[in-house]
Amino acid sequence: MADHKLCMIPGPVEFDPLVLKAMSTPATSHVDPSFITSFGNAIRLAKQVWLAPSGQPFILSGSGTLTWDMTAANLVEPGENVLVVNTGIFGDWFAECLSVYGGKVDQVRAAFGDIPTLAQIETALKSKSYKLITVTHVDTSSGVLNDIKAVAELVHRVSPNTLIALDGVCSVAAEEIRMDEWGLDVVMTASQKAIGVPPGLALMVVSQRALQVAANRKAPPTTYFASFKKWLPIMQKYEAGQPSYFATPPVQLILALEVSLNQFMKEGMEKRFAKHVEASKKFKQACARFGLKIVPVNDKVAANTLTAIYYPEGVQGGEILKSLSQAGVVVAGGLHPEHNTKYFRVGHMNVSAVEPELGHIDKVISALENSLKSLGKL
Amino acid sequence: MADHKLCMIPGPVEFDPLVLKAMSTPATSHVDPSFITSFGNAIRLAKQVWLAPSGQPFILSGSGTLTWDMTAANLVEPGENVLVVNTGIFGDWFAECLSVYGGKVDQVRAAFGDIPTLAQIETALKSKSYKLITVTHVDTSSGVLNDIKAVAELVHRVSPNTLIALDGVCSVAAEEIRMDEWGLDVVMTASQKAIGVPPGLALMVVSQRALQVAANRKAPPTTYFASFKKWLPIMQKYEAGQPSYFATPPVQLILALEVSLNQFMKEGMEKRFAKHVEASKKFKQACARFGLKIVPVNDKVAANTLTAIYYPEGVQGGEILKSLSQAGVVVAGGLHPEHNTKYFRVGHMNVSAVEPELGHIDKVISALENSLKSLGKL
Repeated sequence: MADHKLCMIPGPVEFDPLVLKAMSTPATSHVDPSFITSFGNAIRLAKQVWLAPSGQPFILSGSGTLTWDMTAANLVEPGENVLVVNTGIFGDWFAECLSVYGGKVDQVRAAFGDIPTLAQIETALKSKSYKLITVTHVDTSSGVLNDIKAVAELVHRVSPNTLIALDGVCSVAAEEIRMDEWGLDVVMTASQKAIGVPPGLALMVVSQRALQVAANRKAPPTTYFASFKKWLPIMQKYEAGQPSYFATPPVQLILALEVSLNQFMKEGMEKRFAKHVEASKKFKQACARFGLKIVPVNDKVAANTLTAIYYPEGVQGGEILKSLSQAGVVVAGGLHPEHNTKYFRVGHMNVSAVEPELGHIDKVISALENSLKSLGKL
Repeated sequence: MADHKLCMIPGPVEFDPLVLKAMSTPATSHVDPSFITSFGNAIRLAKQVWLAPSGQPFILSGSGTLTWDMTAANLVEPGENVLVVNTGIFGDWFAECLSVYGGKVDQVRAAFGDIPTLAQIETALKSKSYKLITVTHVDTSSGVLNDIKAVAELVHRVSPNTLIALDGVCSVAAEEIRMDEWGLDVVMTASQKAIGVPPGLALMVVSQRALQVAANRKAPPTTYFASFKKWLPIMQKYEAGQPSYFATPPVQLILALEVSLNQFMKEGMEKRFAKHVEASKKFKQACARFGLKIVPVNDKVAANTLTAIYYPEGVQGGEILKSLSQAGVVVAGGLHPEHNTKYFRVGHMNVSAVEPELGHIDKVISALENSLKSLGKL
């Protein structure tokens, strides 16, 4: 499209042309042999992308939010304790979702732009018995990155029966996640972030341990559509090359997912992680050069998938967003209700990060530079 | 695609090229002004297609199954009575979904291929107080059509407080439905049927009366993703031309939905209903000519969106499906667990029905004729 503006928000991200092409595949039966093969491939590829050879992928119509329901409804029984490691509004919302399914939620929090310390989490974990701990890997509202590896080590040490759920919506397939090696039980995401597929898929991989916990529930979950029990045989059948029906799978989105995940694995996840670090560094260095302050309090807690940047003093947020848009670049405003007028967000995921030759990051940097100059801030 | 086989199953159906083109729209922010307009249009168009000017559309990532959860979770409280008018396995499954949310489900049933009588339904309605009655308009497993207009009249007469929910998955935008005029409270569907959009959208329109019932619940629903309360402000905001966030909307699917619904309204719903009747009649007449018996016991209870056909005696189902596939036509096997080896199903919806010049119905008829001849059955 001639008038297409570069979509540099923290999802939906820019998509590869072959992924978009798969989106317009003509009508295909969800039990067509070619689709069964593709769905099976997507399930197998998800295990590779998540670095979770022993995990069980779930791929269904929905969004990242639906994966919260799946986690909460299947793994938490009414009255059980859940600990939420909160670094922004996605932590608040996940906590609300867990409560809806009867979870008794405690939260460890940090100031805006920071992450809770391991000591805080350890104290909480020792205070009572938690069925589940949830961590937002990258809170899309703040651009803050939690150290899930360290949190997982801590949980395994001090509360080994607590299941570990990672909200990886703005991180899976970009930030380093080694699901099996780190002993994570649930890693959730959505298609429109670093997965590189238009929005419409809820994606998660679940450990065998968590599947067992769900299978051994005292009472069935209060959900039909988000039930592991309904979807597990579907995923197992398609992976085994057989059709099965619970709800019609989103054929075109799953074909697009197969294309995208295949592209990742051609390069390998290690390279993909490294390239996201590289792209993020390049963009953050430019921000520093322009005298812009980012929301995360230090580099260690800053996500590689997006950057949340405070507006320069005296600048109305709308002015920067507008001039970037006029330069053909779409970025996102702030999202945290207490701070949303003070900062904006730039996503740098998927092709924009792993194919620097496309010049997406360069274009944002240059548009931002021009915008700041025109506002007299550079 | 050169090797594309005509997809004549009861969904996914064949799609219009402009709908498919919208599916591959490049990355677009869910708060982009152009998308806000399109989403608002889709919401307004849904009211027109459903003939429900006073209704409230919900358009979200999911499938038809998710609309069951939304209906059950928001409109039924634990312990309340629900009456399911059952004409096939989709009735069985909806009943199961209602039970998951605490509904006490009674069912009125008919023999395979028939619908329960109004007298049966009336007796049930008078036996106790029902919060909700559900009717599968067209059961995709049997090709049977319920007379929702008559059922609605009956309910309004003998049990006026009972909410009326229509599972319109294989009927909305093809079978005659006058939601406002007939006083229906919920009319559900999915994108991949007569709506003419690839699978991935859960679609429903809810009456103001049902929204009130949901708003006045004694206890909140045990769902987060399927909660009316979460989605209602989103739908209202987008319709009013403002962005709002609960979960990322499936941008490309919604753009495709706008294209498809727009096409319907150019022709008008009356013509669209009539053309589906016409296409169905043409196909069923051919079946009769070939000596094939259809599953519905008479024409009055036969759907216009698909035809379920018994295999001729002595013919293995696989033989017909295989020879049709070799002729470039994909149809579906039986789905009802007790009868699935005895019949097959042919969908005739969307462009295949309303654009006879495409020759889709002719191609199926001719492929079926050749198949029967080669099997010595014609």
